[in-house]
Amino acid sequence: MRETEIVEQIRRQALTSYRDKTVVQGIGDDCAIVRPRAGEDLVFTSDFVLEDRHFTLKTHSPAAVGEKALARSISDLAAMGAEPVFCLVSLAVPSKLGGPFVKSFYEGLLRTAKRYSIALAGGDLSRFDKVIADVTCCGRVPRGEALLRSGAKVGHRIYLTGKLGAAAHAFNLGRPILPKPRLKEGMVLRKLGVSAAIDLSDGLSLDLARLCQASNCSAEIDAKRLPLARNATLDEALNGGEDYELLFTAAPKIKVPAGMSEIGVITRQRPSLVLMNGHPLQSKGFDHFA
Amino acid sequence: MRETEIVEQIRRQALTSYRDKTVVQGIGDDCAIVRPRAGEDLVFTSDFVLEDRHFTLKTHSPAAVGEKALARSISDLAAMGAEPVFCLVSLAVPSKLGGPFVKSFYEGLLRTAKRYSIALAGGDLSRFDKVIADVTCCGRVPRGEALLRSGAKVGHRIYLTGKLGAAAHAFNLGRPILPKPRLKEGMVLRKLGVSAAIDLSDGLSLDLARLCQASNCSAEIDAKRLPLARNATLDEALNGGEDYELLFTAAPKIKVPAGMSEIGVITRQRPSLVLMNGHPLQSKGFDHFA
Repeated sequence: MRETEIVEQIRRQALTSYRDKTVVQGIGDDCAIVRPRAGEDLVFTSDFVLEDRHFTLKTHSPAAVGEKALARSISDLAAMGAEPVFCLVSLAVPSKLGGPFVKSFYEGLLRTAKRYSIALAGGDLSRFDKVIADVTCCGRVPRGEALLRSGAKVGHRIYLTGKLGAAAHAFNLGRPILPKPRLKEGMVLRKLGVSAAIDLSDGLSLDLARLCQASNCSAEIDAKRLPLARNATLDEALNGGEDYELLFTAAPKIKVPAGMSEIGVITRQRPSLVLMNGHPLQSKGFDHFA
Repeated sequence: MRETEIVEQIRRQALTSYRDKTVVQGIGDDCAIVRPRAGEDLVFTSDFVLEDRHFTLKTHSPAAVGEKALARSISDLAAMGAEPVFCLVSLAVPSKLGGPFVKSFYEGLLRTAKRYSIALAGGDLSRFDKVIADVTCCGRVPRGEALLRSGAKVGHRIYLTGKLGAAAHAFNLGRPILPKPRLKEGMVLRKLGVSAAIDLSDGLSLDLARLCQASNCSAEIDAKRLPLARNATLDEALNGGEDYELLFTAAPKIKVPAGMSEIGVITRQRPSLVLMNGHPLQSKGFDHFA
Protein backbone atom coordinates (compact mmCIF):
# COMPACT_ATOMS: atom_id res chain seq x y z
CA MET A 1 0.00 0.00 0.00
CA ARG A 2 1.35 3.42 -0.93
CA GLU A 3 1.63 6.33 1.49
CA THR A 4 -1.10 8.26 -0.37
CA GLU A 5 -3.52 5.33 0.05
CA ILE A 6 -2.68 4.90 3.74
CA VAL A 7 -3.20 8.62 4.40
CA GLU A 8 -6.51 8.50 2.50
CA GLN A 9 -7.60 5.56 4.68
CA ILE A 10 -6.67 7.44 7.89
CA ARG A 11 -8.53 10.51 6.61
CA ARG A 12 -11.68 8.44 6.08
CA GLN A 13 -11.33 6.75 9.50
CA ALA A 14 -10.96 10.21 11.10
CA LEU A 15 -14.16 11.49 9.47
CA THR A 16 -16.21 8.75 11.15
CA SER A 17 -14.62 9.50 14.54
CA TYR A 18 -15.03 12.63 16.68
CA ARG A 19 -15.16 15.92 14.76
CA ASP A 20 -14.82 19.44 16.12
CA LYS A 21 -16.59 22.30 14.34
CA THR A 22 -13.69 24.67 14.93
CA VAL A 23 -11.42 22.38 12.83
CA VAL A 24 -12.43 23.75 9.42
CA GLN A 25 -9.83 21.76 7.45
CA GLY A 26 -8.55 18.40 8.69
CA ILE A 27 -6.24 15.84 7.07
CA GLY A 28 -5.46 16.40 3.38
CA ASP A 29 -3.73 19.76 2.98
CA ASP A 30 -0.30 21.15 3.93
CA CYS A 31 -1.77 22.26 7.28
CA ALA A 32 -4.93 21.74 9.31
CA ILE A 33 -7.01 24.91 9.79
CA VAL A 34 -8.63 25.80 13.10
CA ARG A 35 -11.00 28.72 13.73
CA PRO A 36 -10.71 29.74 17.41
CA ARG A 37 -13.83 30.89 19.25
CA ALA A 38 -13.96 34.36 20.77
CA GLY A 39 -12.78 34.61 24.38
CA GLU A 40 -10.85 31.39 24.57
CA ASP A 41 -7.22 30.49 25.12
CA LEU A 42 -5.78 27.47 23.34
CA VAL A 43 -3.31 25.16 25.11
CA PHE A 44 -0.77 22.90 23.37
CA THR A 45 1.36 19.93 24.33
CA SER A 46 3.50 17.32 22.54
CA ASP A 47 4.48 13.88 23.80
CA PHE A 48 6.61 11.11 22.38
CA VAL A 49 5.74 7.45 22.65
CA LEU A 50 8.84 5.47 21.64
CA GLU A 51 9.32 1.73 21.14
CA ASP A 52 11.39 0.03 23.87
CA ARG A 53 11.25 3.22 25.91
CA HIS A 54 7.53 3.85 26.56
CA PHE A 55 6.24 0.47 25.32
CA THR A 56 7.37 -2.75 23.66
CA LEU A 57 5.75 -4.60 20.78
CA LYS A 58 5.54 -7.65 23.07
CA THR A 59 3.42 -5.94 25.70
CA HIS A 60 1.43 -3.50 23.55
CA SER A 61 -0.74 -4.23 20.52
CA PRO A 62 -0.61 -1.61 17.73
CA ALA A 63 -4.01 -0.32 18.91
CA ALA A 64 -2.71 -0.03 22.50
CA VAL A 65 0.27 2.00 21.27
CA GLY A 66 -2.16 4.35 19.50
CA GLU A 67 -4.29 4.62 22.63
CA LYS A 68 -1.30 5.27 24.87
CA ALA A 69 0.20 7.86 22.50
CA LEU A 70 -2.97 9.94 22.55
CA ALA A 71 -3.89 9.42 26.22
CA ARG A 72 -0.44 10.55 27.45
CA SER A 73 -0.80 13.81 25.59
CA ILE A 74 -4.45 14.33 26.66
CA SER A 75 -3.33 14.04 30.29
CA ASP A 76 -1.45 17.33 29.83
CA LEU A 77 -4.70 18.97 28.68
CA ALA A 78 -6.35 17.63 31.86
CA ALA A 79 -3.63 19.28 33.95
CA MET A 80 -4.56 22.66 32.43
CA GLY A 81 -8.28 22.11 33.04
CA ALA A 82 -8.76 22.22 29.26
CA GLU A 83 -11.42 20.79 26.99
CA PRO A 84 -9.90 18.83 24.06
CA VAL A 85 -10.08 20.31 20.55
CA PHE A 86 -7.80 18.44 18.15
CA CYS A 87 -4.60 16.41 17.82
CA LEU A 88 -1.84 16.01 15.25
CA VAL A 89 -0.18 12.59 15.08
CA SER A 90 3.30 11.92 13.72
CA LEU A 91 3.90 8.19 13.31
CA ALA A 92 6.84 6.23 11.91
CA VAL A 93 6.89 2.44 11.63
CA PRO A 94 9.34 -0.16 10.30
CA SER A 95 8.60 -1.30 6.74
CA LYS A 96 8.12 -4.91 7.92
CA LEU A 97 5.11 -3.76 10.00
CA GLY A 98 3.84 -1.40 7.29
CA GLY A 99 0.22 -0.57 6.51
CA PRO A 100 -1.48 -3.09 8.85
CA PHE A 101 0.33 -1.69 11.91
CA VAL A 102 -0.58 1.87 10.89
CA LYS A 103 -4.24 0.89 10.44
CA SER A 104 -4.50 -0.78 13.88
CA PHE A 105 -2.58 2.04 15.58
CA TYR A 106 -5.10 4.53 14.22
CA GLU A 107 -8.04 2.32 15.22
CA GLY A 108 -6.81 2.44 18.84
CA LEU A 109 -6.01 6.11 18.64
CA LEU A 110 -9.34 7.09 17.07
CA ARG A 111 -11.31 4.99 19.59
CA THR A 112 -9.53 6.98 22.31
CA ALA A 113 -10.12 10.23 20.42
CA LYS A 114 -13.85 9.50 20.36
CA ARG A 115 -13.91 8.69 24.10
CA TYR A 116 -12.26 12.01 24.96
CA SER A 117 -13.96 14.07 22.21
CA ILE A 118 -10.84 15.14 20.37
CA ALA A 119 -10.58 15.45 16.58
CA LEU A 120 -7.68 14.03 14.55
CA ALA A 121 -6.69 16.97 12.35
CA GLY A 122 -3.39 15.97 10.74
CA GLY A 123 0.15 14.74 11.27
CA ASP A 124 2.99 13.00 9.50
CA LEU A 125 3.72 9.45 8.41
CA SER A 126 7.14 7.96 7.83
CA ARG A 127 9.18 4.79 7.92
CA PHE A 128 11.77 4.10 10.58
CA ASP A 129 13.65 1.20 12.25
CA LYS A 130 11.34 1.35 15.26
CA VAL A 131 7.81 2.48 16.02
CA ILE A 132 7.81 6.10 17.16
CA ALA A 133 4.88 8.44 17.63
CA ASP A 134 4.62 12.06 18.67
CA VAL A 135 1.17 13.40 19.49
CA THR A 136 0.40 17.11 19.74
CA CYS A 137 -2.86 17.93 21.50
CA CYS A 138 -4.74 21.23 21.53
CA GLY A 139 -7.34 22.12 24.15
CA ARG A 140 -9.43 25.18 24.97
CA VAL A 141 -10.08 27.07 28.21
CA PRO A 142 -11.94 30.33 28.88
CA ARG A 143 -9.43 33.19 28.50
CA GLY A 144 -6.99 33.43 31.42
CA GLU A 145 -8.42 30.43 33.26
CA ALA A 146 -5.93 27.67 32.44
CA LEU A 147 -4.59 25.85 35.50
CA LEU A 148 -0.86 26.50 35.88
CA ARG A 149 1.87 24.87 37.93
CA SER A 150 2.80 28.29 39.25
CA GLY A 151 -0.30 29.28 41.22
CA ALA A 152 0.30 27.49 44.56
CA LYS A 153 0.44 29.73 47.64
CA VAL A 154 1.70 29.12 51.17
CA GLY A 155 -1.05 27.49 53.22
CA HIS A 156 -2.81 25.95 50.22
CA ARG A 157 -3.65 22.28 50.62
CA ILE A 158 -2.16 19.61 48.31
CA TYR A 159 -4.49 17.03 46.73
CA LEU A 160 -4.51 14.04 44.40
CA THR A 161 -7.34 12.88 42.13
CA GLY A 162 -6.80 9.13 42.61
CA LYS A 163 -4.43 6.39 43.76
CA LEU A 164 -0.65 6.29 43.43
CA GLY A 165 1.74 3.62 42.17
CA ALA A 166 -0.70 1.54 40.12
CA ALA A 167 1.25 1.99 36.89
CA ALA A 168 4.67 1.33 38.47
CA HIS A 169 3.32 -1.71 40.31
CA ALA A 170 1.78 -3.18 37.16
CA PHE A 171 4.95 -2.37 35.19
CA ASN A 172 7.12 -4.11 37.80
CA LEU A 173 4.95 -7.21 37.32
CA GLY A 174 5.35 -6.93 33.51
CA ARG A 175 1.76 -5.81 33.04
CA PRO A 176 1.75 -2.27 31.65
CA ILE A 177 -1.55 -0.43 32.03
CA LEU A 178 -2.90 2.29 29.79
CA PRO A 179 -3.20 5.90 30.99
CA LYS A 180 -6.66 7.16 31.94
CA PRO A 181 -6.31 10.94 31.71
CA ARG A 182 -8.30 12.86 34.34
CA LEU A 183 -9.93 15.12 31.79
CA LYS A 184 -13.33 15.63 33.45
CA GLU A 185 -11.70 16.10 36.84
CA GLY A 186 -9.38 18.75 35.38
CA MET A 187 -12.30 20.77 34.02
CA VAL A 188 -14.19 20.45 37.34
CA LEU A 189 -11.11 21.63 39.28
CA ARG A 190 -10.65 24.62 36.95
CA LYS A 191 -14.24 25.69 37.51
CA LEU A 192 -13.77 25.26 41.28
CA GLY A 193 -10.85 27.69 41.13
CA VAL A 194 -8.04 25.49 42.44
CA SER A 195 -4.68 27.31 42.45
CA ALA A 196 -2.22 25.01 40.65
CA ALA A 197 -2.13 21.63 38.91
CA ILE A 198 0.26 19.17 37.22
CA ASP A 199 -0.28 15.66 35.89
CA LEU A 200 1.75 12.86 37.45
CA SER A 201 3.72 11.51 34.52
CA ASP A 202 7.14 11.15 36.16
CA GLY A 203 6.27 10.33 39.78
CA LEU A 204 4.94 12.28 42.77
CA SER A 205 8.35 13.11 44.26
CA LEU A 206 9.58 14.75 41.04
CA ASP A 207 6.30 16.31 39.87
CA LEU A 208 5.53 17.86 43.28
CA ALA A 209 9.03 19.39 43.31
CA ARG A 210 8.32 20.79 39.82
CA LEU A 211 5.04 22.34 40.96
CA CYS A 212 6.82 23.85 43.98
CA GLN A 213 9.63 25.21 41.82
CA ALA A 214 7.17 26.83 39.39
CA SER A 215 5.24 28.31 42.34
CA ASN A 216 8.43 29.35 44.19
CA CYS A 217 7.40 27.49 47.33
CA SER A 218 7.93 24.23 49.22
CA ALA A 219 5.66 21.40 50.32
CA GLU A 220 5.13 19.13 53.28
CA ILE A 221 3.33 15.85 52.77
CA ASP A 222 2.20 13.12 55.11
CA ALA A 223 3.17 9.55 54.15
CA LYS A 224 0.18 7.94 55.82
CA ARG A 225 -2.25 10.13 53.87
CA LEU A 226 -0.90 9.00 50.49
CA PRO A 227 -3.61 7.05 48.63
CA LEU A 228 -1.70 3.90 47.59
CA ALA A 229 -3.08 1.74 44.79
CA ARG A 230 -3.80 -1.90 45.68
CA ASN A 231 -0.53 -3.76 46.42
CA ALA A 232 1.60 -0.73 45.43
CA THR A 233 4.63 -0.03 47.63
CA LEU A 234 5.46 3.41 49.05
CA ASP A 235 8.41 3.60 46.63
CA GLU A 236 6.14 2.87 43.65
CA ALA A 237 3.71 5.53 44.92
CA LEU A 238 6.39 8.19 45.39
CA ASN A 239 8.69 7.51 42.47
CA GLY A 240 6.74 5.48 39.89
CA GLY A 241 5.90 7.23 36.65
CA GLU A 242 2.82 7.17 34.43
CA ASP A 243 0.09 7.35 37.07
CA TYR A 244 -1.48 10.28 35.20
CA GLU A 245 -3.40 11.42 38.26
CA LEU A 246 -3.70 15.16 38.81
CA LEU A 247 -1.72 16.71 41.65
CA PHE A 248 -3.23 20.08 42.59
CA THR A 249 -3.34 22.73 45.26
CA ALA A 250 -6.28 24.76 46.54
CA ALA A 251 -6.95 27.45 49.11
CA PRO A 252 -8.32 25.95 52.38
CA LYS A 253 -11.77 27.48 51.78
CA ILE A 254 -12.24 25.46 48.58
CA LYS A 255 -14.23 22.27 48.99
CA VAL A 256 -12.74 19.67 46.66
CA PRO A 257 -14.90 16.87 45.24
CA ALA A 258 -15.33 13.58 47.13
CA GLY A 259 -12.81 10.88 46.29
CA MET A 260 -9.85 13.21 46.07
CA SER A 261 -7.18 12.94 48.77
CA GLU A 262 -5.57 15.73 50.77
CA ILE A 263 -1.91 14.77 51.22
CA GLY A 264 -0.19 17.88 52.58
CA VAL A 265 0.28 21.62 52.57
CA ILE A 266 2.29 24.27 50.70
CA THR A 267 4.98 25.87 52.88
CA ARG A 268 7.48 28.72 52.78
CA GLN A 269 10.85 26.96 52.87
CA ARG A 270 13.55 26.57 50.19
CA PRO A 271 11.74 26.60 46.79
CA SER A 272 11.09 23.11 45.38
CA LEU A 273 11.93 21.42 48.71
CA VAL A 274 9.48 18.61 49.51
CA LEU A 275 9.32 17.25 53.06
CA MET A 276 7.62 13.99 53.92
CA ASN A 277 6.96 13.48 57.63
CA GLY A 278 9.49 16.24 58.29
CA HIS A 279 12.33 14.76 56.19
CA PRO A 280 13.48 15.94 52.76
CA LEU A 281 12.06 13.74 50.00
CA GLN A 282 14.45 13.03 47.16
CA SER A 283 13.09 13.56 43.63
CA LYS A 284 13.60 10.05 42.29
CA GLY A 285 10.97 10.21 39.59
CA PHE A 286 11.67 9.42 35.98
CA ASP A 287 14.40 11.56 34.40
CA HIS A 288 15.29 10.87 30.75
CA PHE A 289 18.81 12.25 31.14
CA ALA A 290 19.69 11.28 34.74
CA MET B 1 23.14 17.07 33.15
CA ARG B 2 19.62 16.20 34.27
CA GLU B 3 16.52 16.61 32.12
CA THR B 4 15.23 19.42 34.35
CA GLU B 5 18.47 21.38 33.85
CA ILE B 6 18.48 20.83 30.09
CA VAL B 7 14.86 21.98 29.82
CA GLU B 8 15.66 25.04 31.94
CA GLN B 9 18.56 25.85 29.60
CA ILE B 10 16.33 25.53 26.52
CA ARG B 11 13.70 27.72 28.20
CA ARG B 12 16.30 30.45 28.78
CA GLN B 13 17.63 30.15 25.22
CA ALA B 14 14.04 30.47 23.91
CA LEU B 15 13.43 33.67 25.89
CA THR B 16 16.32 35.41 24.14
CA SER B 17 15.07 34.28 20.73
CA TYR B 18 11.89 35.37 18.92
CA ARG B 19 8.82 35.83 21.12
CA ASP B 20 5.21 36.17 20.06
CA LYS B 21 2.82 38.19 22.22
CA THR B 22 -0.02 35.76 21.64
CA VAL B 23 2.02 32.98 23.33
CA VAL B 24 1.09 33.88 26.92
CA GLN B 25 2.78 30.82 28.50
CA GLY B 26 5.78 29.15 26.87
CA ILE B 27 8.06 26.35 28.07
CA GLY B 28 7.64 25.33 31.70
CA ASP B 29 4.09 24.11 32.27
CA ASP B 30 2.09 21.05 31.20
CA CYS B 31 0.98 22.96 28.08
CA ALA B 32 1.85 26.18 26.27
CA ILE B 33 -0.97 28.77 26.25
CA VAL B 34 -1.84 30.80 23.15
CA ARG B 35 -4.36 33.65 22.97
CA PRO B 36 -5.70 33.85 19.40
CA ARG B 37 -6.47 37.25 17.90
CA ALA B 38 -9.99 38.06 16.72
CA GLY B 39 -10.72 37.27 13.07
CA GLU B 40 -7.85 34.88 12.45
CA ASP B 41 -7.60 31.23 11.54
CA LEU B 42 -4.72 29.18 12.92
CA VAL B 43 -3.00 26.56 10.78
CA PHE B 44 -1.05 23.55 12.09
CA THR B 45 1.45 21.07 10.71
CA SER B 46 3.80 18.40 12.10
CA ASP B 47 6.93 17.02 10.45
CA PHE B 48 9.41 14.36 11.44
CA VAL B 49 13.14 14.66 10.91
CA LEU B 50 14.66 11.22 11.50
CA GLU B 51 18.30 10.13 11.61
CA ASP B 52 19.44 8.08 8.59
CA ARG B 53 16.16 8.91 6.87
CA HIS B 54 16.09 12.71 6.57
CA PHE B 55 19.71 13.34 7.60
CA THR B 56 22.83 11.57 8.86
CA LEU B 57 25.14 12.62 11.67
CA LYS B 58 28.00 12.55 9.12
CA THR B 59 26.45 15.15 6.85
CA HIS B 60 24.54 17.30 9.36
CA SER B 61 25.84 19.03 12.47
CA PRO B 62 23.46 19.05 15.46
CA ALA B 63 22.66 22.71 14.67
CA ALA B 64 21.88 21.80 11.04
CA VAL B 65 19.49 19.07 12.21
CA GLY B 66 17.71 21.67 14.37
CA GLU B 67 17.56 24.09 11.46
CA LYS B 68 16.26 21.46 9.06
CA ALA B 69 13.65 20.16 11.51
CA LEU B 70 12.10 23.61 11.91
CA ALA B 71 12.49 24.76 8.29
CA ARG B 72 10.72 21.67 6.90
CA SER B 73 7.71 22.37 9.08
CA ILE B 74 7.72 26.12 8.34
CA SER B 75 7.54 25.31 4.62
CA ASP B 76 4.03 23.94 5.24
CA LEU B 77 3.05 27.29 6.78
CA ALA B 78 4.40 28.97 3.62
CA ALA B 79 2.17 26.75 1.48
CA MET B 80 -0.90 28.06 3.38
CA GLY B 81 0.21 31.69 3.02
CA ALA B 82 0.46 31.83 6.81
CA GLU B 83 2.48 34.03 9.14
CA PRO B 84 4.39 31.94 11.76
CA VAL B 85 3.23 32.04 15.39
CA PHE B 86 4.88 29.28 17.43
CA CYS B 87 6.39 25.80 17.31
CA LEU B 88 6.53 22.78 19.61
CA VAL B 89 9.63 20.60 19.34
CA SER B 90 9.83 16.95 20.37
CA LEU B 91 13.43 15.75 20.39
CA ALA B 92 14.99 12.43 21.37
CA VAL B 93 18.74 11.76 21.31
CA PRO B 94 21.01 8.82 22.20
CA SER B 95 22.55 9.06 25.68
CA LYS B 96 26.07 9.06 24.21
CA LEU B 97 25.25 12.40 22.49
CA GLY B 98 23.34 13.75 25.49
CA GLY B 99 23.17 17.38 26.62
CA PRO B 100 25.76 18.88 24.21
CA PHE B 101 23.84 17.59 21.17
CA VAL B 102 20.56 18.95 22.57
CA LYS B 103 22.15 22.35 23.20
CA SER B 104 23.57 22.65 19.65
CA PHE B 105 20.36 21.36 18.08
CA TYR B 106 18.43 24.12 19.85
CA GLU B 107 21.00 26.74 18.87
CA GLY B 108 20.41 25.88 15.20
CA LEU B 109 16.67 25.65 15.68
CA LEU B 110 16.38 28.94 17.58
CA ARG B 111 18.59 30.77 15.05
CA THR B 112 16.13 29.58 12.38
CA ALA B 113 13.17 30.50 14.61
CA LYS B 114 14.49 34.04 14.88
CA ARG B 115 15.02 34.31 11.12
CA TYR B 116 11.40 33.29 10.43
CA SER B 117 9.88 35.04 13.47
CA ILE B 118 8.44 31.96 15.16
CA ALA B 119 8.39 31.41 18.93
CA LEU B 120 9.49 28.14 20.59
CA ALA B 121 6.59 27.43 22.96
CA GLY B 122 7.15 23.88 24.21
CA GLY B 123 7.75 20.26 23.30
CA ASP B 124 9.14 17.03 24.67
CA LEU B 125 12.61 15.67 25.38
CA SER B 126 13.55 12.01 25.56
CA ARG B 127 16.34 9.55 25.03
CA PHE B 128 16.39 7.12 22.11
CA ASP B 129 18.80 4.98 20.04
CA LYS B 130 18.81 7.54 17.26
CA VAL B 131 18.21 11.26 16.88
CA ILE B 132 14.56 11.93 16.08
CA ALA B 133 12.69 15.22 16.05
CA ASP B 134 9.10 16.12 15.35
CA VAL B 135 8.27 19.80 14.94
CA THR B 136 4.73 21.15 15.08
CA CYS B 137 4.30 24.65 13.67
CA CYS B 138 1.37 27.02 14.07
CA GLY B 139 0.72 29.95 11.76
CA ARG B 140 -2.02 32.55 11.37
CA VAL B 141 -4.02 33.79 8.38
CA PRO B 142 -6.97 36.18 8.14
CA ARG B 143 -10.15 34.12 8.59
CA GLY B 144 -11.01 32.03 5.53
CA GLU B 145 -7.97 33.13 3.54
CA ALA B 146 -5.59 30.18 3.91
CA LEU B 147 -4.27 28.88 0.60
CA LEU B 148 -5.53 25.34 -0.01
CA ARG B 149 -4.51 22.60 -2.39
CA SER B 150 -8.12 22.33 -3.47
CA GLY B 151 -8.76 25.72 -5.10
CA ALA B 152 -7.35 25.16 -8.62
CA LYS B 153 -9.82 25.67 -11.51
CA VAL B 154 -9.69 24.66 -15.18
CA GLY B 155 -7.79 27.31 -17.13
CA HIS B 156 -5.75 28.51 -14.13
CA ARG B 157 -2.05 28.80 -14.81
CA ILE B 158 0.51 26.71 -12.86
CA TYR B 159 3.54 28.45 -11.35
CA LEU B 160 6.67 27.78 -9.28
CA THR B 161 8.44 30.16 -6.91
CA GLY B 162 12.02 29.08 -7.74
CA LYS B 163 14.22 26.45 -9.37
CA LEU B 164 13.75 22.69 -9.34
CA GLY B 165 16.05 19.80 -8.52
CA ALA B 166 18.66 21.69 -6.48
CA ALA B 167 18.15 19.52 -3.37
CA ALA B 168 18.11 16.23 -5.27
CA HIS B 169 21.19 17.23 -7.26
CA ALA B 170 23.12 18.23 -4.14
CA PHE B 171 21.98 15.05 -2.39
CA ASN B 172 23.14 12.89 -5.30
CA LEU B 173 26.58 14.49 -4.92
CA GLY B 174 26.53 13.78 -1.15
CA ARG B 175 26.04 17.47 -0.30
CA PRO B 176 22.67 17.90 1.40
CA ILE B 177 21.37 21.46 1.45
CA LEU B 178 19.08 23.01 4.02
CA PRO B 179 15.49 23.97 3.19
CA LYS B 180 14.74 27.67 2.61
CA PRO B 181 10.98 27.87 3.17
CA ARG B 182 9.20 30.38 0.89
CA LEU B 183 7.45 32.11 3.75
CA LYS B 184 7.38 35.68 2.41
CA GLU B 185 6.40 34.46 -1.04
CA GLY B 186 3.51 32.46 0.47
CA MET B 187 2.11 35.53 2.22
CA VAL B 188 2.48 37.64 -0.95
CA LEU B 189 0.67 34.98 -2.99
CA ARG B 190 -2.18 34.77 -0.46
CA LYS B 191 -2.69 38.52 -0.65
CA LEU B 192 -2.63 38.34 -4.47
CA GLY B 193 -5.49 35.84 -4.32
CA VAL B 194 -3.87 32.84 -6.04
CA SER B 195 -6.21 29.84 -6.15
CA ALA B 196 -4.21 26.88 -4.76
CA ALA B 197 -0.75 26.11 -3.34
CA ILE B 198 1.39 23.23 -2.08
CA ASP B 199 5.03 23.09 -1.04
CA LEU B 200 7.34 20.78 -2.99
CA SER B 201 8.56 18.37 -0.35
CA ASP B 202 8.23 15.12 -2.28
CA GLY B 203 8.91 16.16 -5.89
CA LEU B 204 6.97 18.06 -8.59
CA SER B 205 5.49 14.97 -10.25
CA LEU B 206 3.93 13.73 -6.99
CA ASP B 207 3.03 17.09 -5.44
CA LEU B 208 1.36 18.41 -8.63
CA ALA B 209 -0.71 15.21 -8.81
CA ARG B 210 -1.72 15.80 -5.14
CA LEU B 211 -2.79 19.37 -5.88
CA CYS B 212 -4.80 18.14 -8.89
CA GLN B 213 -6.41 15.37 -6.84
CA ALA B 214 -7.43 17.83 -4.09
CA SER B 215 -8.81 20.24 -6.72
CA ASN B 216 -10.47 17.42 -8.72
CA CYS B 217 -8.72 18.45 -11.94
CA SER B 218 -5.74 17.60 -14.13
CA ALA B 219 -2.68 19.48 -15.32
CA GLU B 220 -0.58 19.92 -18.42
CA ILE B 221 2.99 21.13 -18.07
CA ASP B 222 5.68 22.03 -20.55
CA ALA B 223 9.10 20.42 -19.98
CA LYS B 224 11.06 23.27 -21.54
CA ARG B 225 9.44 25.84 -19.22
CA LEU B 226 10.59 24.00 -16.08
CA PRO B 227 13.08 26.19 -14.20
CA LEU B 228 15.95 23.74 -13.60
CA ALA B 229 18.50 24.49 -10.90
CA ARG B 230 22.15 24.71 -12.05
CA ASN B 231 23.36 21.27 -13.20
CA ALA B 232 20.13 19.56 -12.12
CA THR B 233 18.78 16.88 -14.47
CA LEU B 234 15.16 16.74 -15.64
CA ASP B 235 14.66 13.65 -13.46
CA GLU B 236 15.98 15.50 -10.40
CA ALA B 237 13.66 18.41 -11.20
CA LEU B 238 10.58 16.24 -11.66
CA ASN B 239 11.09 13.60 -9.00
CA GLY B 240 13.59 14.94 -6.48
CA GLY B 241 12.25 15.76 -3.04
CA GLU B 242 12.99 18.58 -0.59
CA ASP B 243 13.05 21.54 -2.98
CA TYR B 244 10.55 23.36 -0.71
CA GLU B 245 9.54 25.70 -3.51
CA LEU B 246 5.86 26.63 -3.71
CA LEU B 247 3.80 25.20 -6.54
CA PHE B 248 0.67 27.29 -7.05
CA THR B 249 -2.13 28.07 -9.46
CA ALA B 250 -3.76 31.38 -10.30
CA ALA B 251 -6.48 32.72 -12.58
CA PRO B 252 -5.03 34.13 -15.84
CA LYS B 253 -5.92 37.71 -14.85
CA ILE B 254 -3.61 37.54 -11.80
CA LYS B 255 -0.18 39.04 -12.37
CA VAL B 256 2.32 36.94 -10.39
CA PRO B 257 5.53 38.51 -9.07
CA ALA B 258 8.68 38.58 -11.20
CA GLY B 259 11.01 35.62 -10.80
CA MET B 260 8.24 33.05 -10.61
CA SER B 261 7.86 30.64 -13.54
CA GLU B 262 4.69 29.69 -15.38
CA ILE B 263 5.02 25.97 -16.20
CA GLY B 264 1.57 24.90 -17.40
CA VAL B 265 -2.19 25.02 -17.11
CA ILE B 266 -4.98 23.28 -15.17
CA THR B 267 -7.16 21.08 -17.42
CA ARG B 268 -10.37 19.07 -17.24
CA GLN B 269 -9.19 15.48 -17.75
CA ARG B 270 -9.03 12.52 -15.34
CA PRO B 271 -8.51 13.97 -11.80
CA SER B 272 -4.86 13.93 -10.68
CA LEU B 273 -3.60 13.17 -14.21
CA VAL B 274 -0.50 15.20 -15.07
CA LEU B 275 0.59 15.47 -18.72
CA MET B 276 4.03 16.73 -19.72
CA ASN B 277 4.36 17.65 -23.41
CA GLY B 278 1.17 15.65 -24.01
CA HIS B 279 2.32 12.43 -22.28
CA PRO B 280 1.23 11.17 -18.84
CA LEU B 281 3.84 11.96 -16.20
CA GLN B 282 4.36 9.22 -13.64
CA SER B 283 4.34 10.33 -9.98
CA LYS B 284 7.80 9.14 -9.00
CA GLY B 285 8.26 11.51 -6.08
CA PHE B 286 9.20 10.35 -2.63
CA ASP B 287 6.78 7.84 -1.08
CA HIS B 288 7.59 6.54 2.41
CA PHE B 289 5.64 3.33 1.87
CA ALA B 290 6.17 2.63 -1.84
